[in-house]
Amino acid sequence: MSLDAVLSRIDEDIPQALERLFAFLRIPSISTDPAYKADCDAAADWLVADLKSLGIDAEKRPTPGHPMVVGHVDGPGPHLLFYGHYDVQPVDPLELWDRDPFDPEVQDTPKGKVIRGRGTADDKGQLMTFVEACRAWKAVHGSLPCKLTFFFEGEEESGSPSLVPFMEQNADELKSELALICDTGLFESKVPGIEVMLRGLLGEELTITGPSIDLHSGMYGGPAINPIRVLSRIIAALHDQNGRITVPGFYDGVHELSEEVRSQWQRLAFDHAAFLGDVGLSHPAGEHDRTPLEMIWSRPTCEVNGIWGGYTGAGFKTVLPSKASAKISFRLVGDQDPDTIRTSFRKMVQDMLPPDCSVSFKEHSSGPAFSLNQKDPRFDAALGALTDEWGVPAAYIGGGGSIPIAGHFQSILGTTPLLIGFSKDDDALHSPNEKYDLESFHKGTRSWARILDALT
Amino acid sequence: MSLDAVLSRIDEDIPQALERLFAFLRIPSISTDPAYKADCDAAADWLVADLKSLGIDAEKRPTPGHPMVVGHVDGPGPHLLFYGHYDVQPVDPLELWDRDPFDPEVQDTPKGKVIRGRGTADDKGQLMTFVEACRAWKAVHGSLPCKLTFFFEGEEESGSPSLVPFMEQNADELKSELALICDTGLFESKVPGIEVMLRGLLGEELTITGPSIDLHSGMYGGPAINPIRVLSRIIAALHDQNGRITVPGFYDGVHELSEEVRSQWQRLAFDHAAFLGDVGLSHPAGEHDRTPLEMIWSRPTCEVNGIWGGYTGAGFKTVLPSKASAKISFRLVGDQDPDTIRTSFRKMVQDMLPPDCSVSFKEHSSGPAFSLNQKDPRFDAALGALTDEWGVPAAYIGGGGSIPIAGHFQSILGTTPLLIGFSKDDDALHSPNEKYDLESFHKGTRSWARILDALT
Repeated sequence: MSLDAVLSRIDEDIPQALERLFAFLRIPSISTDPAYKADCDAAADWLVADLKSLGIDAEKRPTPGHPMVVGHVDGPGPHLLFYGHYDVQPVDPLELWDRDPFDPEVQDTPKGKVIRGRGTADDKGQLMTFVEACRAWKAVHGSLPCKLTFFFEGEEESGSPSLVPFMEQNADELKSELALICDTGLFESKVPGIEVMLRGLLGEELTITGPSIDLHSGMYGGPAINPIRVLSRIIAALHDQNGRITVPGFYDGVHELSEEVRSQWQRLAFDHAAFLGDVGLSHPAGEHDRTPLEMIWSRPTCEVNGIWGGYTGAGFKTVLPSKASAKISFRLVGDQDPDTIRTSFRKMVQDMLPPDCSVSFKEHSSGPAFSLNQKDPRFDAALGALTDEWGVPAAYIGGGGSIPIAGHFQSILGTTPLLIGFSKDDDALHSPNEKYDLESFHKGTRSWARILDALT
Repeated sequence: MSLDAVLSRIDEDIPQALERLFAFLRIPSISTDPAYKADCDAAADWLVADLKSLGIDAEKRPTPGHPMVVGHVDGPGPHLLFYGHYDVQPVDPLELWDRDPFDPEVQDTPKGKVIRGRGTADDKGQLMTFVEACRAWKAVHGSLPCKLTFFFEGEEESGSPSLVPFMEQNADELKSELALICDTGLFESKVPGIEVMLRGLLGEELTITGPSIDLHSGMYGGPAINPIRVLSRIIAALHDQNGRITVPGFYDGVHELSEEVRSQWQRLAFDHAAFLGDVGLSHPAGEHDRTPLEMIWSRPTCEVNGIWGGYTGAGFKTVLPSKASAKISFRLVGDQDPDTIRTSFRKMVQDMLPPDCSVSFKEHSSGPAFSLNQKDPRFDAALGALTDEWGVPAAYIGGGGSIPIAGHFQSILGTTPLLIGFSKDDDALHSPNEKYDLESFHKGTRSWARILDALT
């Protein structure tokens, strides 16, 4: 059987596949930090060269930010698109890494072999599972199984500012029958799944200004307003005692789960205690009447992702600062509207400001929540391929993160997205010591070969 | 008259005095940051050499931290000690400085000539007013007016960890009849004064830990506790709606002003609106039933001097951090006990922690408030000398800052401190673009000559 030949080829080629992945991982393509602009460009160049080696007509396409990589190859059967991102998260705090984040290696751990390094799981390692599946397919068959478009961006970790304009300007070129996206995870690190619900995201940065200059807290402490205190009061007021978010109108458009979905999720028998225990926690901290799985997949949140103000170095400085800032993000579900919530949040902050204080806002990325129709027969075909590869029944699952691209494929291109990924809960995405299990890389690559086989 | 000759000599020598001061200011002796250890040492060496040039038997004395500088010269009359500090505050945020903080210059401003640079007012410029007064005195008379001890430390801006042990170990050597301290300011930038009340200080640093590692806010936002939110809630709870501090027992030992002091302060006719307006404020933010002058001189405070957690760089990172930290300080008055308040504060924080969170504390400097008996005839003599120099009645004033050394002179050496300084409210102490008016430097030097004349 030809699929078996492809799978065997994948198995044999793992050492070379890792070498290719390591070369890609060594490029520190941190998109949010302008200092790494040239590295993002280098990562795009690397992808173009790798796709070309597969006979794909690939090129780097300029944007006002980091470039896109787009590649096409013709073929029979359906037209599939594959999306991934070549940029990675910042690495701070660097001192918590056990090794250079950009010097990847395969490590033996008590839980098995892992590929350690920034971007292994998010998203370079995942992206390469599809590319390697194509490489094996081509090695066995001499050509790829169908008409394919490759679409990689370099701004996913910094809010994708160029994505929507690029998709709109190149809609005819990017339209396809199904958009495969590999930027999600296994359910509970064990069960492969197709994500059919994803939360939206709304990012805001605010800076409170009190005194016009930094002051000496001895000379002005008491009569002068302290913007850190003002900011803390605002943050403290964003949740009530039951963990509900207090921004007016915030829950408009948040729906309760249907009975069908609720019972699907119950069958998954999610291990809440293990999920929290893995990161040193034992009590779900969100809304008091919800389970952790509900909180992550179907409930909105408000989190502070960063806060800073005053003196934060070694020692002590009795400064009463002029400014204090925070980065705050909301995860959205159902029909919550990001723009409406942004307006309401800003008004709430304005209304809480004491005299002599002002606030400025910086808008970060936003996108609504997203859900898919599980009845699509192609989904069932992919689910079957995943079940065959992993030996356990694959599942339709939700996702707590936000993958705005999935919604854009629907709304801009009219293309149905298919979200399949192989990262695990303990991969430390966005954290020090990020890793990707060698099993995820290997079985992930095999999974894509099976899915290509099932869809074409 | 010989005093006139000294004053004339001071007037003539200003250009050379500025050159000496600039050499001293160019040494970036930031005591709180270990990176500047060698610079602190260099500043001490500079002082030793300068004192020796006046015939003073001076030397650098080691401590576990930055060195002390101690110098003696014999003479007739009373034994006076002069104290100052050669270390300076950090300079961040550096981008708000109009020039290199350690490249001082005299600048023409609409309000007159100023010496611009870190340490000009706090405390190198002030310290040198006394040294220059001695230099002029010696130039005119061939010797200094009395037995003098010079005592300079290099850890005043980092909590003076070595000060008390050093004073205790060298008490016999440092004992004197009066300790002159030049680290305070003019009243409202206009009226010279002797500070007879100073607030105490208690510094704490706390770190809240929630999850054991930084998390992805999509994957864990909701069920995982966010330490920034916990810290914000604690900070928000430290004051009630009337601006009073809520730490249990905090106001034990806080006394109301005597009628005598209250009427003295009323006669000063402090311009509250101008005091706040200078830094862009219009509403006193402290306890609702107190005037700003009362707040600064006679009421305790709780301020957040720094806060940090999560991602604080450019762009956005949807991290749910493991830790969040703050530096918090209390200004103390009357008989408030720093140790009791530290214990109560820590218990309050512990009691507010939700499940799964822990807190660690780092102890920074502490010292009780301080007050002096205004009836000392030497105080009246100094007050008269100040009145003569500045042409307006000098005043007994309070101070919002904390100068723990003043209390140590009393408690460890039994020496009465005399706190006189010439900095102005707009000197931007601890802030970017710190300056010291040329008038302060010049008249300050002349003031010390007059005070030496009056006391000997």
